[in-house]
Amino acid sequence: MLDTELNVMGKMLHTNLGVNDEGHLTLAGRDTVELAESYGTPLMLMDEARVRMRMREYTETMREVFAPGSMPLFASKALSCKEMYRIAHSEGMGTDIVSCGELYTANSVGFPMEKAYFHGNNKTDKDISYALDCGVGTFICDNREELYALSAQAKDRGITQRVILRVTPGIDPHTHEAINTGKVDSKFGTAIETGQAMELIKELLTLPALELVGLHCHVGSLCFDSKPFIDAAHIMIAFMAAVREQTGKTLTVLNLGGGYGVRYVESDPEFSIPENLRLVSAEIKKCCSANNFPEPQILLEPGRSIVADAGVTVYTVGSVKTITGYKSYVSVDGGMSDNPRYALYKSDYTVLNASRAAAERDFTATVAGRLCESGDLIGEDMLMAKPQRGDKLAVLVTGAYNYAMSSNYNRVPRPPVVFIAPDGETRVAIRRETFEDVAKLDV
Amino acid sequence: MLDTELNVMGKMLHTNLGVNDEGHLTLAGRDTVELAESYGTPLMLMDEARVRMRMREYTETMREVFAPGSMPLFASKALSCKEMYRIAHSEGMGTDIVSCGELYTANSVGFPMEKAYFHGNNKTDKDISYALDCGVGTFICDNREELYALSAQAKDRGITQRVILRVTPGIDPHTHEAINTGKVDSKFGTAIETGQAMELIKELLTLPALELVGLHCHVGSLCFDSKPFIDAAHIMIAFMAAVREQTGKTLTVLNLGGGYGVRYVESDPEFSIPENLRLVSAEIKKCCSANNFPEPQILLEPGRSIVADAGVTVYTVGSVKTITGYKSYVSVDGGMSDNPRYALYKSDYTVLNASRAAAERDFTATVAGRLCESGDLIGEDMLMAKPQRGDKLAVLVTGAYNYAMSSNYNRVPRPPVVFIAPDGETRVAIRRETFEDVAKLDV
Repeated sequence: MLDTELNVMGKMLHTNLGVNDEGHLTLAGRDTVELAESYGTPLMLMDEARVRMRMREYTETMREVFAPGSMPLFASKALSCKEMYRIAHSEGMGTDIVSCGELYTANSVGFPMEKAYFHGNNKTDKDISYALDCGVGTFICDNREELYALSAQAKDRGITQRVILRVTPGIDPHTHEAINTGKVDSKFGTAIETGQAMELIKELLTLPALELVGLHCHVGSLCFDSKPFIDAAHIMIAFMAAVREQTGKTLTVLNLGGGYGVRYVESDPEFSIPENLRLVSAEIKKCCSANNFPEPQILLEPGRSIVADAGVTVYTVGSVKTITGYKSYVSVDGGMSDNPRYALYKSDYTVLNASRAAAERDFTATVAGRLCESGDLIGEDMLMAKPQRGDKLAVLVTGAYNYAMSSNYNRVPRPPVVFIAPDGETRVAIRRETFEDVAKLDV
Repeated sequence: MLDTELNVMGKMLHTNLGVNDEGHLTLAGRDTVELAESYGTPLMLMDEARVRMRMREYTETMREVFAPGSMPLFASKALSCKEMYRIAHSEGMGTDIVSCGELYTANSVGFPMEKAYFHGNNKTDKDISYALDCGVGTFICDNREELYALSAQAKDRGITQRVILRVTPGIDPHTHEAINTGKVDSKFGTAIETGQAMELIKELLTLPALELVGLHCHVGSLCFDSKPFIDAAHIMIAFMAAVREQTGKTLTVLNLGGGYGVRYVESDPEFSIPENLRLVSAEIKKCCSANNFPEPQILLEPGRSIVADAGVTVYTVGSVKTITGYKSYVSVDGGMSDNPRYALYKSDYTVLNASRAAAERDFTATVAGRLCESGDLIGEDMLMAKPQRGDKLAVLVTGAYNYAMSSNYNRVPRPPVVFIAPDGETRVAIRRETFEDVAKLDV
């Protein structure tokens, strides 16, 4: 019985999925087909309760297992919009911000700036000035030029700016090449291994108007265990001890970045954030003890693991094509304009025929987007109940880096993002773009 | 002498590049550094004279060598904005349109709808209705479902809609996988080889309110010779003759799609559009004669070859990092948000230090974007005069599929597109996005 199959998949990917009496897929108790008809497609749905549950996994566990003052920072690049900053704030999270556009958005809904951590490998003088105007709590500085520019501006303003320095611990987390960021050969940060990080710290400590409080590293994305984090913690704490020895400065904050994975398909491993944070905590205590170093405040930057599996994108099918002797294509009314992750990384997704969620999943096809580009696919060899024009197709686990990376390629307007509240009420968090919006910058 | 080197490169990639007395790079006679200071960076510059020259290569040659009524259609997905439709119209081109967003834009500046050809593998009922409201001249229909939906709507309106059917001739043009679209295994069109195209044409001819005038195929992108077009013409004309034989219907339009390449780097071959069109024309005449088939009107869909080499993107350098024992990174204030082509396809680009255009190009580095993603690179192993923070870096040949594919990833605002007119005057064609714009859809 297919209901069972969906439930198994539901349990594995989204415990919040179901099938109702009409055979429609439900998300957080709401009929996805009905919502698609009411809001139009493509439609991005977010289960708010799931987002809040994920946030609490971090906030509660981090409070329990790490030093006082430790905090998760929502890596807002995964889904930056006003509503996400509101929710992150209400759950007591800080935020990791990577541009003035994100800063503007967070600030516009009153996100407390002292809990904003400003990242970026290329902060312009204008960016620095804007962030100082906003009163950003902490700059996560990437490079020498930025340190000098920030020092000069902070000095001019007569303030002392709190700074964390990004370094590379030299760990290759064996994930996708494009998202390896902990290794030495990186556009981000400064390498510990080459001695350049120590040299830069010594230089930084001579600069006026900056207060270095800690270090940052980021060892990758889509990690399904804590080994990269534990390896990083070992290197970083040993390095912090070396900094104390060579400079006399005891750094009190260790930001281990983001990177926990989420399950996009059934073959991805099952995984518990709280359990993993406990493992990391135990190792940090060991390292600190071994180095006779005071346990630092830990910051983490979860993004994907907060929002990914709360999201479902609903499309309408336009055509089903079976090429004799080859394969089948199902085309939908979105594509790489709202989800470029297959085009960029060949990312795996799971699809369900939301209109026939109780029917047997016995049809395999490439799901193609509507854009004029052969690479515009949602996925290949995807299993679903055979659709026909007008059926709604649900692509699961699309809450992270889908809307955030969306574009107007082919001048396709971006879909709305609609939150389903814990009480089942829906609200538009990002409205659908119109043709007028798409052309509004044209002169 | 480096001036010479720039000139050689300039001749090969942009005859419109130069170096002025201040050692700054010029485009179409204008100082790119001065323009960058005046408009801010990132800045996308377009040389209007170059765009018009490319358009005329098509319009004039096609008028000369193909049957009367033949016409190039600007494939506007390469750079869809009001100004491009104005220019295409003023040069007597038609346009290939792939979405209602493009249609809206073209229509809003009075582009003649009878010269608009509406593409897309997934036209929704709403798309069809919108395009009929606009009075689109020709639908390029992709699939059975679309034909039925269009027939029903046209019948309801009491009109007869002009239609071209997209088929796949089964040619693999040996270019990048993601842009192979002529082969049988494609999300686009219907295959000749499998017999499905003939079957669909017979069905189409029974549908009310549709007038089938011709066929469309598209054999790929970045072709540096005419072999794929010639191969396609052979297959298509033989197929049109078979259609005449089996149905009695003589089709009069053959749309061979787009696909001529442009030179992104010096190692790309030199190439003349007019010469190639003459070769294609000669083969078409031969095929028609061999099949005793009347020479059809030829439509072509140039996009990249119209706008690519008119465009230059100017960035400001934020940091220059040399990782001891590894390599160097130059970071700029844009990236995959304005040019995702390296992230998507590992596309090659040529870079020049616009601030030191007369200096020796003796520094090799990875040019990295400002976005929080390791894959956000403009290119690797790029040769340039060594920059420092504040220098302007020019990335050449960025007129096609750069702005068109731009996004607000990391909530980075999109750059402006500024045209340099033949008289040297500049005008904003797409204004710079503000933070307010970026967050405007948020509720």
